[in-house]
Amino acid sequence: MKDDNVLDIAKRRGFFWPSFEIYGSVGGFYTYGPLGALLKLRIEQMIRNHYVNNEGCLLIEAPLLSPEDPWVASGHVESFTDMTIECGKCGEPYRADHLLEEKTKKSTEGMSLTMIKGLIKKNDVRCPRCGGPLENVYDYNLMFKTFIGPGKNKIAADLRPETAQTTYMPFRRLFELGRKKLPLGVIQFGKSFRNEISPRQGLVRLREFSQAEAQFFLDPENKRKHSKFDLVKRKRLSVLTKHDQVRNKPGNALEASGLVRKKLTSEWIAYFLAVSVKLFEDMGIDGSRLRCRQHKDDERSFYSSDTWDVEYMSDSYGKIELVGIADRTDYDLKRHQEFSKQSMEVNIEGRRFVPHVVEIAYGIDRPVYSVIESCLRHDGDRTYFSFPPTVSPYQVAVFPLVKKDGLPKKAREIQKTLLDAGFYALYDEGFIGRLYYRQDEAGTPFCITYDYDSKKDNSVTIRKRDDQKQIRVRIKDIVNVIGDIISGRVKFEKAGKLLK
Amino acid sequence: MKDDNVLDIAKRRGFFWPSFEIYGSVGGFYTYGPLGALLKLRIEQMIRNHYVNNEGCLLIEAPLLSPEDPWVASGHVESFTDMTIECGKCGEPYRADHLLEEKTKKSTEGMSLTMIKGLIKKNDVRCPRCGGPLENVYDYNLMFKTFIGPGKNKIAADLRPETAQTTYMPFRRLFELGRKKLPLGVIQFGKSFRNEISPRQGLVRLREFSQAEAQFFLDPENKRKHSKFDLVKRKRLSVLTKHDQVRNKPGNALEASGLVRKKLTSEWIAYFLAVSVKLFEDMGIDGSRLRCRQHKDDERSFYSSDTWDVEYMSDSYGKIELVGIADRTDYDLKRHQEFSKQSMEVNIEGRRFVPHVVEIAYGIDRPVYSVIESCLRHDGDRTYFSFPPTVSPYQVAVFPLVKKDGLPKKAREIQKTLLDAGFYALYDEGFIGRLYYRQDEAGTPFCITYDYDSKKDNSVTIRKRDDQKQIRVRIKDIVNVIGDIISGRVKFEKAGKLLK
Repeated sequence: MKDDNVLDIAKRRGFFWPSFEIYGSVGGFYTYGPLGALLKLRIEQMIRNHYVNNEGCLLIEAPLLSPEDPWVASGHVESFTDMTIECGKCGEPYRADHLLEEKTKKSTEGMSLTMIKGLIKKNDVRCPRCGGPLENVYDYNLMFKTFIGPGKNKIAADLRPETAQTTYMPFRRLFELGRKKLPLGVIQFGKSFRNEISPRQGLVRLREFSQAEAQFFLDPENKRKHSKFDLVKRKRLSVLTKHDQVRNKPGNALEASGLVRKKLTSEWIAYFLAVSVKLFEDMGIDGSRLRCRQHKDDERSFYSSDTWDVEYMSDSYGKIELVGIADRTDYDLKRHQEFSKQSMEVNIEGRRFVPHVVEIAYGIDRPVYSVIESCLRHDGDRTYFSFPPTVSPYQVAVFPLVKKDGLPKKAREIQKTLLDAGFYALYDEGFIGRLYYRQDEAGTPFCITYDYDSKKDNSVTIRKRDDQKQIRVRIKDIVNVIGDIISGRVKFEKAGKLLK
Repeated sequence: MKDDNVLDIAKRRGFFWPSFEIYGSVGGFYTYGPLGALLKLRIEQMIRNHYVNNEGCLLIEAPLLSPEDPWVASGHVESFTDMTIECGKCGEPYRADHLLEEKTKKSTEGMSLTMIKGLIKKNDVRCPRCGGPLENVYDYNLMFKTFIGPGKNKIAADLRPETAQTTYMPFRRLFELGRKKLPLGVIQFGKSFRNEISPRQGLVRLREFSQAEAQFFLDPENKRKHSKFDLVKRKRLSVLTKHDQVRNKPGNALEASGLVRKKLTSEWIAYFLAVSVKLFEDMGIDGSRLRCRQHKDDERSFYSSDTWDVEYMSDSYGKIELVGIADRTDYDLKRHQEFSKQSMEVNIEGRRFVPHVVEIAYGIDRPVYSVIESCLRHDGDRTYFSFPPTVSPYQVAVFPLVKKDGLPKKAREIQKTLLDAGFYALYDEGFIGRLYYRQDEAGTPFCITYDYDSKKDNSVTIRKRDDQKQIRVRIKDIVNVIGDIISGRVKFEKAGKLLK
């Protein structure tokens, strides 16, 4: 029962839990507790550091709420809908197409509302909850709607369903700030909202979720080559192309360069598939469960010329899309140009054109879940999370062996030294076995104990989470040693005097 | 015209700008551009580090959207309103009480809707925009309302107007995770929303804004003494008490300890006033413009027994409230207990009680604005932002003297070294004067230039933003030197060979 375990531990240890519990929780809303909020913060930090430092992206932050105009232009007001049907008796809403597919085991792809309504009647599909009759089929828009301002002049508004459009709107300003050069990369972190009909998949399908979406604006005549492709070309990826799926083939292991050489996708997309898989692995997600899957032609959004997902094969939820990488062409900027009457054209080397966009759209909650699931370890009667020190809520915990004789004060001083040096260091006190147990369940990679000998030999014991090995290290070296073992520059066993 | 300058530079250099510009901007929504988003991130990081590391707060993250229940319990559904009146001709909405006060120069405090309506008619107050008649006075709720889920069973929901209630709701879970001890500190960062009638004050009054709210749950019998008060007792504060205001006195400069000794407030509130003023000063906000002001009895929220604000005296906007520190008593937890029927009592040392709460509620956007305004410097024809290295978007920029002869490659290597060491380092290239100019306007405290001599002497020049002094430093020492001068451990002039 691995999956129960993950969710049980996550809840018990305060990684996350359903929101508004005291009033009865509502599907699709989760609250991150102390460990989860820190884990999420580290994961966002990793993605941000990579895109800002290594890819040169500009970071921006736009509002979540906006007037409808951009969502009319983007097509969300018209098309961001699910076919919905309700039970005439208990009122429970369902995805009409999904319900019909479950009953008939046949695809509803391309069917109109009317057809689906007819087939639901013909097949006598009934409410799965109470057996009542299903009625009132309609297209249900997944944006949360509200109004800005009071009275007659109030403005219809929506909570954004993605960050992307809020990055496209100020493109002209961003192009100026980026000194009128392409490619221009811009990344935005923040909440987005989808008013799902009936979400029941924990962090994997939320009505309010966190994203990190990078938009690269490109010259369409200079779109395929990526200047840093050589850095990732040897990265091995598990690949499932659209052709594989059509032909029912299992996919292949390929190097990133193979994806391009076989003309399966562009260097830009292959580059970011490799970068994303590497990032996910560095977070602690099991690389053998990651797959790069290309969208089929009939599945891809109409504005995209090529889309890939990196998927994680979860024990609890099946396939989870962690990031979507799409060539969105010039569709979005042209639509904003058309609807706002503001030019989105740039003039580069005497050519005027609307840039194309390659988007890398990360969910944050799903990677958080996947890291937690991937890192759960059972070792005899020990249970721990093997979070890498880059994402673990705490990198190091410091304990006094006992809560007396001045030991707590000394342990706190060591914690302070580590905090000042920039490490995520926690202080705790109590029975030592209990303290280790807690840090195992928090996934803290290293624990430091200040004991009675510490006063004499000016040294402390460091315990490694994964194999419980212990080394003795001089207190004056502690910052360097923790830096060395966290970064992996020095092997744990070599970083001090190995005990036992 | 200092204030125009701040807003002009902020917009031109991409700190922030009105959102949705291409569709016509809407009051109360701003987008942070590349420099602003980084500055905001650093400011949030400072507050988070302080409260998590030094105050031992648990960090959590709850949804922004929620069913109405908590907002009924908190009183927001009933009382979070402004009296609104609209123009019968152009439809423009106004605060009815403010409009009447402007016309009559008399306070409307305590007046009912009906009285205000009558006085508006009697005084012939008309629409300031078009001169039309004012009509339709009503209480307007400032929460953004929407619905969760489709159809008949949809749930009425609101965007949160503060983070506080979303921290109180899971109090029982947090108390367990904090091992059933008081005081318990919890902090939450994130967006909140207030559907203001007609906001026109830039970052200072937003409909969508960022907050950092810390809640300390306390034993009411052990509420006044703060264990770390000694650390701040000598901190000098500019203080305006409720008595000063009633008696029209100008206030005093006092040490934090004086606030307690004179029984003006509790140690808990005095402690966090001192901590907040220190944090704001460390961000670069002009300390001589900060004042601790106590709410008057008739101004304080009814649930609070004592409330203080730290205010910044802005050139552009007058008094800006940067943080509110309030003793919220047991009001909120008791209301949630009453409305949810879930006990909020704790059992400590045989006593059962509902904890009291001291809240420290930071805005984020207002400190961001105040830092920008406080740090703008004019020095002859130079203009720069004197951001401290703790909050500056970039701590150090690295340039090649020219864009040829292999200099760019070497400069990039230095940037990489600095990034790997954890500094916020930017690479740029172009004419050196132009590069300095750009970094002055970005507030980057140090610039490093790799020049033709660098190849021979393995050294680079570091230029200090504030006085343009330059030192020559060996490349192999660059990480240590940048660390020393950023932290202030070593004086700039002593950190290398002073040039000129």
